[in-house]
Amino acid sequence: MPETATPLFQRLTLIGLGLIGSSVARAARENGLAAEIVACDASESVCARVTELGFADRVEPDLIRAVTGADCVMLCVPVGVMADTAATIAPHLAPGCILTDVGSTKLSVVRDVGPVVPDGVHFVPAHPLAGTEFSGPDAGFAELFQGRYCLVVPPAGTNADAVAKIVALWQGMGAMVEEMEPAHHDRVLAVTSHLPHLIAFTICGTADDLADETKDEVLRFAASGFRDFTRIAASDPVMWRDIFLNNREALLEMLARFTEDAQAMAKAIRWGDAGYIEDKVLRGRKIRRSLIEIKQA
Amino acid sequence: MPETATPLFQRLTLIGLGLIGSSVARAARENGLAAEIVACDASESVCARVTELGFADRVEPDLIRAVTGADCVMLCVPVGVMADTAATIAPHLAPGCILTDVGSTKLSVVRDVGPVVPDGVHFVPAHPLAGTEFSGPDAGFAELFQGRYCLVVPPAGTNADAVAKIVALWQGMGAMVEEMEPAHHDRVLAVTSHLPHLIAFTICGTADDLADETKDEVLRFAASGFRDFTRIAASDPVMWRDIFLNNREALLEMLARFTEDAQAMAKAIRWGDAGYIEDKVLRGRKIRRSLIEIKQA
Ligand SMILES: NC(=O)c1ccc[n+]([C@@H]2O[C@H](COP(=O)([O-])OP(=O)(O)OC[C@H]3O[C@@H](n4cnc5c(N)ncnc54)[C@H](OP(=O)(O)O)[C@@H]3O)[C@@H](O)[C@H]2O)c1
Ligand SMILES: NC(=O)c1ccc[n+]([C@@H]2O[C@H](COP(=O)([O-])OP(=O)(O)OC[C@H]3O[C@@H](n4cnc5c(N)ncnc54)[C@H](OP(=O)(O)O)[C@@H]3O)[C@@H](O)[C@H]2O)c1
Repeated sequence: MPETATPLFQRLTLIGLGLIGSSVARAARENGLAAEIVACDASESVCARVTELGFADRVEPDLIRAVTGADCVMLCVPVGVMADTAATIAPHLAPGCILTDVGSTKLSVVRDVGPVVPDGVHFVPAHPLAGTEFSGPDAGFAELFQGRYCLVVPPAGTNADAVAKIVALWQGMGAMVEEMEPAHHDRVLAVTSHLPHLIAFTICGTADDLADETKDEVLRFAASGFRDFTRIAASDPVMWRDIFLNNREALLEMLARFTEDAQAMAKAIRWGDAGYIEDKVLRGRKIRRSLIEIKQA
Repeated sequence: MPETATPLFQRLTLIGLGLIGSSVARAARENGLAAEIVACDASESVCARVTELGFADRVEPDLIRAVTGADCVMLCVPVGVMADTAATIAPHLAPGCILTDVGSTKLSVVRDVGPVVPDGVHFVPAHPLAGTEFSGPDAGFAELFQGRYCLVVPPAGTNADAVAKIVALWQGMGAMVEEMEPAHHDRVLAVTSHLPHLIAFTICGTADDLADETKDEVLRFAASGFRDFTRIAASDPVMWRDIFLNNREALLEMLARFTEDAQAMAKAIRWGDAGYIEDKVLRGRKIRRSLIEIKQA
């Protein structure tokens, strides 16, 4: 911990030491954001590896012991296990403690975790828009959040100081923080992240179902576009299963819109409607230009 | 031209000096593959720019004068204009000349160009699997084809020496050359390139149709996956319109398979079929691993 920094928290407990949890541990330590970092993971082998990697001050496999006395607890597990994890730890959270998470869906976390948060504990859900296609404690690194957005979605009436501390925590790790409504978060992420991943997984499956000879050549000649889809598709199955199931409404709506648009394109191709096709390609270009203009390309 | 090389052709005429044509000009010159390189483009401004850039020995705006006396003519125009271009030049091709192209669809080129090729002229269609999202003569570079595949699809009975010269030309520019049937080419490219581009254009359109507030945020938070799709979607509208219209059958078939697979995924999400979703994500991972193994990732 840099000597000069005043830590935001006395004891930051991270539950789930995968890509995100282990990156938070490294970034919090490097930036002196917590006086003590406690790491808790359900898997013995992960706990052993975290001990070896040495980025936590204490590795505590027991959930209840891990959260006891913490002034901030961050859930870094797949969104499908947030409910159970929160229910187990809730009675053991100290008054004034801030409970936060990094889950990729937010309505579900508010729905699943919100009701079990005890009085006097502040619940500040968040979602860092940063990641790689790798997982586990070895995949994390301290710079993961630098220059990336982190969306914070506090329920109405959340203690303002608690929100400010979570904002400061993410800013301290280099992120740009924005507040957002959970429902809006889930719609935006459905388009920017969940639908692209669904499409990428699906097209890999479509390719995998082809006759052998064609499939082999699809792999060999993947460089022409397909390859970029497989990169997106290399992610963790449990994490993505949970995201799809926990952002069902928004994702299915966006998929339905996309499918309609793809059908309209198919019809234009079938009937030779050159103008329609050109117009769609131009819109792709326009969107790309907008991204370049706002420096998100 | 390097003094040591024996040029494969005395006069190589390139028709269409966009990304691909101008890259061929640069690569052929740098590797001493042609004694003279003649550049021909329909647009005055492109001709002027090619003269400035200086990678051709002669810029000749007139199609007929450009091909006269050439022992190799390469069509580097969008696949939708191959037919007209070939019809115009065909009567002026010298006996023994090799006519080739770089079009992204091959059944259509065989169908459109094949019938007008005069006796004594050798027709050897090809397709370099290399490109960027940029176009025009400034976008090209000599190294574009290095380490990339080039697929050659000579009709049955094509003169073997002519095929060997086109193979040598692409190898001379650094490409790995493979022979393939045109119908098989179009099916493989439908999956590896045309469908991914169709999907990328479509999802950009879907995003562009969203309500303003959501759309703005989709752009701001594009880094979570969407961004990679927009990169693919930044390509030239005319080129892609022509590709879609000229690989109609294979592309619509692959899109139909993909759509069925996406619908099955939607159903699994709607009914909470966790096993199905996990299995699909795992297949994405598997495909990605295969690419890494064969060093195409
Ligand atoms: N990866 C991204 O791009 C990204 C970006 C932003 C947010 N997120 C969110 O961050 C969270 C963690 O993702 P990650 O990428 O860090 O995943 P990860 O590397 O796969 O790590 C997941 C962690 O959760 C634990 N876990 C899994 N199942 C569990 C269960 N049933 N009970 C208790 N713990 C369990 C894992 O422990 P074991 O090792 O014992 O299985 C592991 O420590 C998820 O909610 C995800 O949606 C991910
Ligand atoms: N880009 C890729 O990734 C890629 C990869 C492999 C193969 N290809 C194929 O290569 C060919 C050229 O693509 P490119 O990427 O080089 O495109 P590009 O940069 O847009 O260049 C296209 C060229 O074709 C000319 N052209 C367009 N419409 C024409 C018309 N109606 N009549 C005569 N000439 C016309 C253009 O001339 P003006 O400047 O006068 O419009 C330009 O010189 C296409 O068949 C494409 O399918 C492309």
